[in-house]
Amino acid sequence: MQFDRLWLNAALVTMDGPEGDPLGVIRDGAIAAKDGRIAWLGPRAAIPGSAAETIDCAGAHLLPGLIDCHTHLVFGGDRAGEFQQRLAGVSYEEIAKAGGGILSTVRATRAADEAALVASGAPRLKALMAEGVTTVEIKSGYGLDIQTELRQLRAARALAAAHPVRIETTLLAAHATPPEYAGRRTDYAAHVAQDIIPAAAREGLADAVDAFLDTAIGFDARETAMVLDVAHGLGLPVKLHADQLRDDDGAAFAARHGALSADHIEYANPAGLRAMARAGSVGVLLPGAFYFIRETHHPDVAAMREAGLRLALATDLNPGSSPALSLLLMLNLGCTLFRLTVEEALLGVTRHAAAALGRQDRGRLAPGLLCDLALFDIRQPADLCYWIGRNPCTGRVVGGR
Amino acid sequence: MQFDRLWLNAALVTMDGPEGDPLGVIRDGAIAAKDGRIAWLGPRAAIPGSAAETIDCAGAHLLPGLIDCHTHLVFGGDRAGEFQQRLAGVSYEEIAKAGGGILSTVRATRAADEAALVASGAPRLKALMAEGVTTVEIKSGYGLDIQTELRQLRAARALAAAHPVRIETTLLAAHATPPEYAGRRTDYAAHVAQDIIPAAAREGLADAVDAFLDTAIGFDARETAMVLDVAHGLGLPVKLHADQLRDDDGAAFAARHGALSADHIEYANPAGLRAMARAGSVGVLLPGAFYFIRETHHPDVAAMREAGLRLALATDLNPGSSPALSLLLMLNLGCTLFRLTVEEALLGVTRHAAAALGRQDRGRLAPGLLCDLALFDIRQPADLCYWIGRNPCTGRVVGGR
Ligand SMILES: [Zn+2]
Ligand SMILES: [Zn+2]
Repeated sequence: MQFDRLWLNAALVTMDGPEGDPLGVIRDGAIAAKDGRIAWLGPRAAIPGSAAETIDCAGAHLLPGLIDCHTHLVFGGDRAGEFQQRLAGVSYEEIAKAGGGILSTVRATRAADEAALVASGAPRLKALMAEGVTTVEIKSGYGLDIQTELRQLRAARALAAAHPVRIETTLLAAHATPPEYAGRRTDYAAHVAQDIIPAAAREGLADAVDAFLDTAIGFDARETAMVLDVAHGLGLPVKLHADQLRDDDGAAFAARHGALSADHIEYANPAGLRAMARAGSVGVLLPGAFYFIRETHHPDVAAMREAGLRLALATDLNPGSSPALSLLLMLNLGCTLFRLTVEEALLGVTRHAAAALGRQDRGRLAPGLLCDLALFDIRQPADLCYWIGRNPCTGRVVGGR
Repeated sequence: MQFDRLWLNAALVTMDGPEGDPLGVIRDGAIAAKDGRIAWLGPRAAIPGSAAETIDCAGAHLLPGLIDCHTHLVFGGDRAGEFQQRLAGVSYEEIAKAGGGILSTVRATRAADEAALVASGAPRLKALMAEGVTTVEIKSGYGLDIQTELRQLRAARALAAAHPVRIETTLLAAHATPPEYAGRRTDYAAHVAQDIIPAAAREGLADAVDAFLDTAIGFDARETAMVLDVAHGLGLPVKLHADQLRDDDGAAFAARHGALSADHIEYANPAGLRAMARAGSVGVLLPGAFYFIRETHHPDVAAMREAGLRLALATDLNPGSSPALSLLLMLNLGCTLFRLTVEEALLGVTRHAAAALGRQDRGRLAPGLLCDLALFDIRQPADLCYWIGRNPCTGRVVGGR
């Protein structure tokens, strides 16, 4: 067999092992690419062909390219000044009165043209990529009007075109109620359903649709259902921000609506988690936001395990509640704060993160999958979870190159 | 005036402002070096001379080189495997029985020769340096015998010789009781005082002496005093790990012994904190360890402020309780977990970190001080505290070059 490219002398962390061995490590392994996909992998001694190019990995660990399955990477402005004020004792109320909070990000995002959104997003994307991330999900949700929501998604597509990385776009127009609709939240949800989602679908800008189900500060179940039903009708998969700040029975709601994932779910109840597992929804844990907003109510990981729920981990990169640019740090946060095992954490940024995006073509090392790889100079997979603020990534491959 | 080197077009964050403005930012500033020291700084318009070399900082923020004033950077092995086991449900007791915990690091450190300690420490040191750190304190404390304690300090000196960074060495032989002295803790403390400290002093290997004052797992007040008194007698400044896990009245003890700093101090009482402030001791907060061991008892920052205690922030980089390689992340942890202000956090890795090491020649931008600088591509100083897992450092200067 003739391959395009062949990586040798690596420990392959396939994330595709048998029951009880999820990491499925192949020591002294080799992996071959052909036409952008994994053509073969196995022990070096068994290579069934040759390649035009051979790369010596010098004993590195080779994982499927990491996947950050939940970010709000494209936005205008930042909230560093607000962070500084809050620490200096200014109250949330005063900051909100002065125009701070999410609406300040909405204002800054609306004021930014596409080029500005691309320019400010690019260094954030590069920071993720530098750690071995090869797929990034990017949500809209700071426009809250049709033009800006679509502009955010166009900026995400432009970032994809300009960088060797795969971007999955998610329309999150139902993130908050914009000031123009103050007191008319349901009307805004109807606008999202009737106008914004169809427009995004027409332009092919959204790979999925998300909504913030939260009875106090997001959208209620009826409004959220209205949004998700339209998405479904247009053939778009759906996701959910759910049960982050209280138990809104969001996990069960996500399951009922066949969501790819329900994200946050700190307050989700065990019955809802079981329903998610049965429906094949993934639970996406966002320890960066948990940490940054100093949440104290931990996700019920024991119930998630008992339910057999697949868990993903993501940065939730956003200016308000998780200004986090390191997916590797989320591994440590997930292990330290949520007591995930090393295996659960690593599945959460590979195989299960792919599932949270509905992408079965990545997240594992297996023949036929996209040849997206990340190389790490580590002694063992646990090193990726154990160290805090270390980036041992020494190489990245997207589509076999 | 003729300078060696001149940096232009930077916002100088001097950390030397007047009362109420600790950051003391000079916009569109310039700073000049002569013979390794800061010769002049001020607004660009006022430059009083020229330089052999001029560097355009392109609008970057320029801070005094960052100082990590508490690390255990030189050690053998790591504890990633133990981390993985604990997450998989293995108890502390089982791990200790199997030879885990600090004694596994002691074993690995004793088994490593100086070259091995330098080789494993170098990438950790480089990770700190990459974020703009120009001074790193390194403690011994994983040898617990005379040869290995001195070898750790020699490795620290060798790291200094091989990298453009300043290393301050601290002898921490009184870190734990070695297995050879099981049940004879006081005898070991006496050995530290009578043999190890004098040997380190003779070879000029220790810039300071530290001890772990903890009535349950460290050394009691009498033993610790014995160690510190010998250090004092040899002209070595002293520091203390104190009040980390319980209130041992360690803060007052540190003040009584004229310690440069007492570190951790989560459980320190207000009277002790006031005594420290009066004695000029610095309080070193270690949020990485607080986070990693899931401590829930917060340091009494309000009492520290009221006492007028100077606060520093450090990584506590060590394999057991803080495998942290990012001082910038400690800024965010300090702000998020301990509610430090941006100003307190930044003072904690510059001016007050210098004080914690007894080094008045660095930590601020002021004429006559060492020309150790860090350049950051940020919009405002608060960015260094706000972002999580971002490294905006674009340049480092040590001794004017
Ligand atoms: Zn989110
Ligand atoms: Zn320490």
